[in-house]
Amino acid sequence: MSGTGEFAFISQSLAPLSAGYEGAFDLTDDAAILAKTAGLIATTDTLVQGVHFRIEDPLDLVARKALRVNISDLVAMAATPHAFMMSIVWPDDISSDDQKRFVEGLAVDADQFSIPLIGGDTTRGGDRLVVTITAFGECERPLRRNTARPGDRVFVSGTIGDGYLGLQSSTLNLPDTDRRWLDERYQLPEARTSLIGVLRELASAGLDISDGLIADAGHLARTSGVALEIDLTEVPISNAAQSWLKSTRNRQECLVSLITGGDDYEILFCVPDDNAEAMMAAARAVKTKITEIGRVQHGEGVRVLDESGEIVQILRTGFTHF
Amino acid sequence: MSGTGEFAFISQSLAPLSAGYEGAFDLTDDAAILAKTAGLIATTDTLVQGVHFRIEDPLDLVARKALRVNISDLVAMAATPHAFMMSIVWPDDISSDDQKRFVEGLAVDADQFSIPLIGGDTTRGGDRLVVTITAFGECERPLRRNTARPGDRVFVSGTIGDGYLGLQSSTLNLPDTDRRWLDERYQLPEARTSLIGVLRELASAGLDISDGLIADAGHLARTSGVALEIDLTEVPISNAAQSWLKSTRNRQECLVSLITGGDDYEILFCVPDDNAEAMMAAARAVKTKITEIGRVQHGEGVRVLDESGEIVQILRTGFTHF
Repeated sequence: MSGTGEFAFISQSLAPLSAGYEGAFDLTDDAAILAKTAGLIATTDTLVQGVHFRIEDPLDLVARKALRVNISDLVAMAATPHAFMMSIVWPDDISSDDQKRFVEGLAVDADQFSIPLIGGDTTRGGDRLVVTITAFGECERPLRRNTARPGDRVFVSGTIGDGYLGLQSSTLNLPDTDRRWLDERYQLPEARTSLIGVLRELASAGLDISDGLIADAGHLARTSGVALEIDLTEVPISNAAQSWLKSTRNRQECLVSLITGGDDYEILFCVPDDNAEAMMAAARAVKTKITEIGRVQHGEGVRVLDESGEIVQILRTGFTHF
Repeated sequence: MSGTGEFAFISQSLAPLSAGYEGAFDLTDDAAILAKTAGLIATTDTLVQGVHFRIEDPLDLVARKALRVNISDLVAMAATPHAFMMSIVWPDDISSDDQKRFVEGLAVDADQFSIPLIGGDTTRGGDRLVVTITAFGECERPLRRNTARPGDRVFVSGTIGDGYLGLQSSTLNLPDTDRRWLDERYQLPEARTSLIGVLRELASAGLDISDGLIADAGHLARTSGVALEIDLTEVPISNAAQSWLKSTRNRQECLVSLITGGDDYEILFCVPDDNAEAMMAAARAVKTKITEIGRVQHGEGVRVLDESGEIVQILRTGFTHF
């Protein structure tokens, strides 16, 4: 799987990211020993150039996004980042500058999220970069997506639809600052690690939104055996996305495209009624925006209601890379 | 990361491979809970179509190879297969027959090696299949590669060079049966799980041979701070590879190409002198061929000796995919 170039790259560029994790052996071994914890979860997400990020996106941001989409899965299960493994397939024509830039970005976020690199594989082939990260998280009792109960309130972190707009930001009729902001939201999603402890204490179910708010609400509803009712007017929309909405002719249709567009990597979660006040206070305390957008009911599926309480028809529930 | 096609594929084709592993949640979640064990190690290897396997190789064998090269890393650390996660990037033009065939192969080996699938990611993009597997193994005290000591004897499992010849089998001037056998060795390496317990009890160091016997012996020597001396005439060569050697003009040069060719996925390991007899008896008891090929000495690097005890010049120590 490897050669001289790989070994130099690993020992010089990647090994520093494993510092402090004993079982990573400075990345000199084919395997890592996972440290003992009260409980460990594992999640994997792959980013493919031209599919999950644009061919022209700078590789430092690609590396950070690859790590963040995995950390977002850990957050959704209320697990603390523990360590990660990474497999990279470099395109045949990768430059050493681009490799360096990739590692620089990775190092920034590995440090920011206190998540050491403990192993992996690097190879070359084909015309596009493929990054697969397997992230490990610590938690004794992970938050699941199948445990929402009728009566729970439904919340979402951050704002929805920015990634969808960011992907097409160059074509939007918006001021440069808005376009740049949306573009950054697409290239570098937030990983809401500030919510981990809060979710662990107070939430009943959760998942991260990668396929679009409505599609992922559907997953939560289906696995929990409940219905989710979402108030379209309550869904949090950023100022930049609001500007875009104002510039469009059919506001509601465009709002629907935001909640079905994907690439949000925000957390959708449910909270028992009794915990709702505490949840809002706790989110304020950790300075993280959360918004109540609906409720869990008996039944199945996702209903989106407009301001008059009428059901909004949604023809395409989510984005698919598959 | 997903869509309707992905969900159907996961629930119908992949979820059965997770049966019996509670924390895999039938692959309905974004993360898996790792079961508590006395100790867990993790390893990752990626196979890229056209690089680590041929474009025309049948996908059932590709899936099995992807799993086996990871299991081989577990064996080398004397760890018992525990579970695995898998990320697949399907090429854009993948057929559902090929997807089915891939899963069929994967199911065969997941069953044979008692290793459940507990999570992953599937996506599409580009013109070549990329499979990344992260495998977990159980063991309290993993066998390392940096613990060989002068005086240890050096062993290898199976036979060396078959994968190298198998990759070019269609061009070899050999009987069909030999060519087919070598081709199968390339397409479907063995994972020497029968040796796990034996290695754990009796070996001092080990690693799996993916880059070529000599290159990997070099890794072991370097990380252990020792020299490895290997007797070229003792390196185990299969009957098919012997036939090829007989057909060539420069036997020694060709023998060197076998020990530097890569794609073996056999285990190279060291055994303290006092354990050597027990090791040979134990390998016989588990019906697995092992061969003593040299010894660990003070110093550094790898020396290959011919039958007269002369040092064999090796210009290119191993194969590189990087």
